[in-house]
Amino acid sequence: MTDRIRDYLARTAHDAPCLVMDLDRVRENYETFARAMPDTRVFYAIKANPAPEILALLADLGSCFDAASLREIEMAMQAGATADRISFSNTIKRERDIATAYRLGVRQYAFDCDAELEKIARSAPGSRVVCRLLCDGNGADWPLSKKFGCSAEMAARLMERAHALGLVAHGLAFHVGSQQPNPMMWDGALETCAELFRKLGERGIEMNLVNLGGGFPARYLRDVPEVDTYGQAINGSLKRHFGNRIPQTIIEPGRGMVGDAGAIRSEILLISQKDDNDPTRWVYLDIGKFGGLAETIDEAIRYPIRTDHDGDDLMPTILAGPTCDSVDVMYEKDPYLLPVSIEIGETVLIESTGAYTSTYAANGFNGFDPLKCVCV
Amino acid sequence: MTDRIRDYLARTAHDAPCLVMDLDRVRENYETFARAMPDTRVFYAIKANPAPEILALLADLGSCFDAASLREIEMAMQAGATADRISFSNTIKRERDIATAYRLGVRQYAFDCDAELEKIARSAPGSRVVCRLLCDGNGADWPLSKKFGCSAEMAARLMERAHALGLVAHGLAFHVGSQQPNPMMWDGALETCAELFRKLGERGIEMNLVNLGGGFPARYLRDVPEVDTYGQAINGSLKRHFGNRIPQTIIEPGRGMVGDAGAIRSEILLISQKDDNDPTRWVYLDIGKFGGLAETIDEAIRYPIRTDHDGDDLMPTILAGPTCDSVDVMYEKDPYLLPVSIEIGETVLIESTGAYTSTYAANGFNGFDPLKCVCV
Repeated sequence: MTDRIRDYLARTAHDAPCLVMDLDRVRENYETFARAMPDTRVFYAIKANPAPEILALLADLGSCFDAASLREIEMAMQAGATADRISFSNTIKRERDIATAYRLGVRQYAFDCDAELEKIARSAPGSRVVCRLLCDGNGADWPLSKKFGCSAEMAARLMERAHALGLVAHGLAFHVGSQQPNPMMWDGALETCAELFRKLGERGIEMNLVNLGGGFPARYLRDVPEVDTYGQAINGSLKRHFGNRIPQTIIEPGRGMVGDAGAIRSEILLISQKDDNDPTRWVYLDIGKFGGLAETIDEAIRYPIRTDHDGDDLMPTILAGPTCDSVDVMYEKDPYLLPVSIEIGETVLIESTGAYTSTYAANGFNGFDPLKCVCV
Repeated sequence: MTDRIRDYLARTAHDAPCLVMDLDRVRENYETFARAMPDTRVFYAIKANPAPEILALLADLGSCFDAASLREIEMAMQAGATADRISFSNTIKRERDIATAYRLGVRQYAFDCDAELEKIARSAPGSRVVCRLLCDGNGADWPLSKKFGCSAEMAARLMERAHALGLVAHGLAFHVGSQQPNPMMWDGALETCAELFRKLGERGIEMNLVNLGGGFPARYLRDVPEVDTYGQAINGSLKRHFGNRIPQTIIEPGRGMVGDAGAIRSEILLISQKDDNDPTRWVYLDIGKFGGLAETIDEAIRYPIRTDHDGDDLMPTILAGPTCDSVDVMYEKDPYLLPVSIEIGETVLIESTGAYTSTYAANGFNGFDPLKCVCV
């Protein structure tokens, strides 16, 4: 929660839930990444929050961009990024979108299998390709599945094939899991990368790049290490495994760039209990899983919530959203401690909601508008 | 999958995922409900699919409407429904929305606690109120939580209070869980309702209505009983528990009305494996959990999928969506059997997707447009 967000909200009446982003905080976060990892280029993961003002600010600061789709490439270019600063990092692409991206000048593509490599070779000839490795993401709050990446053995074969297809076998990528609390989680994957660099080097293929992915956490209720700590740990791993032949590195922060730069104001619509003899308190907000807080699924992400009564006595509260959908309950297994004195009609501030909220919001479910995003 | 949907798709090129709704099927479903439960009024749950063409058709057929929000009330009225055919059935309402609904003529409101009752008494004086009971929804494919409803004891007290506040203590509501496969699940709740009718009658409050909710299933991969079977079971329960004083009843079908009237066409973007020695097949579609198939969360709903190769040999397949989000995997724990011969660039038809898809779709996540819905 920043002063600029507080000021904006103070002069704006609450009508519907609203995400307010502090661009100064985004700038500070960018500079923190740049300072903590000076040899690493930053590719902002647009999907975390594609607000045009954020993209324009980051383009201006010199950031590169990780795009998940053709639309995101277009958004980055509209924000002022040149095509050489954009990586088409989704490993699942329509071939006609690859062709369009290539026409727009994009020359860096992620992949993790033969079919995708063939699409890139056909529709973006001569481009740089980055092969994504499976990574178990052990320990992340929002763990990754096996959806992306391939085994190291397969990656070695694919990179040879990329070279044979006339593509630039540029490097490797992995992702340690979103909201990764352990800075040492990069080490194992970097060891694998270094082995693959050596193995392919012996076959005459010199790779140049390691994409360290995202995973840098935003601060929610639990404390997380500082970006510096991640930078030092990763640097140590790079030296340990690559010796004096350290490759170019890039990172793709999304949550770490914008998560703590946003707060959502939400109205308390109802406070109730289910039986006169059951004191369990239910609090219903005007935002829930469908309105932008989808990352509360399985109670994975626990957002800090500020009320007008902070400091008063607390009581456990089941927190739910406003829709007629019974799954739209945010914190129930592990109820949330909120002041006894909160009342219907008051607003609360849900902090660290700058990432994966406005884009996760449903498109009008129950007749509610998608989450509005304002940048200040 | 109907001939009309097939005809529409045959003359339309695939660009992005598209939900096609057959209005004739919606009409048939409405008539099936009306025939199977002739003494029951149908309130369509708008949230299942609010396409204007569907609302206009149902308004024309004489349907009433279950609205979750002021916006849904406005949509029903724009479609031709008069306010006396609309129930504001969300138990969580902003008080200013109640006031607006009242000005628009809406006179029936759901509630489940003191605070909501007070809002209605203040902002919709003299209206009919329906108290929602907790119902465990045991056995439903998409089970309900304790989010809605109160205990029977509390309902009795609330209905007395409603009467004292000048409201019409109109009746009771419950919901046995969405996609409820067991027609006998209504029986226990109806027994509770009958007891409350008697208890309140003894206190001079004559209730008139039982809202039987939704829960009527759409046909996905598993067979489900016919609507007739539900009608007979519910009728039997009503006679058993209410004797010769059977109340008015209403139902609120959403999925049962539109689920099987829609099909989504989706393109196969990628087919891959994760290692040369692991034959597990991954198939990535251009739609996933964020694009409209949110009910695949926890693999709850298993949609029938048709391909151009039905009849060929099948193999287990992990099915995932197109976003850069690792949770966007639809069927993995229990892989889906699809033909060995499917290929990238072909389309598949995901059937029985008429309910809870277009409205669940995220608002541009990863730069993908929300799911388009076309009515034929």
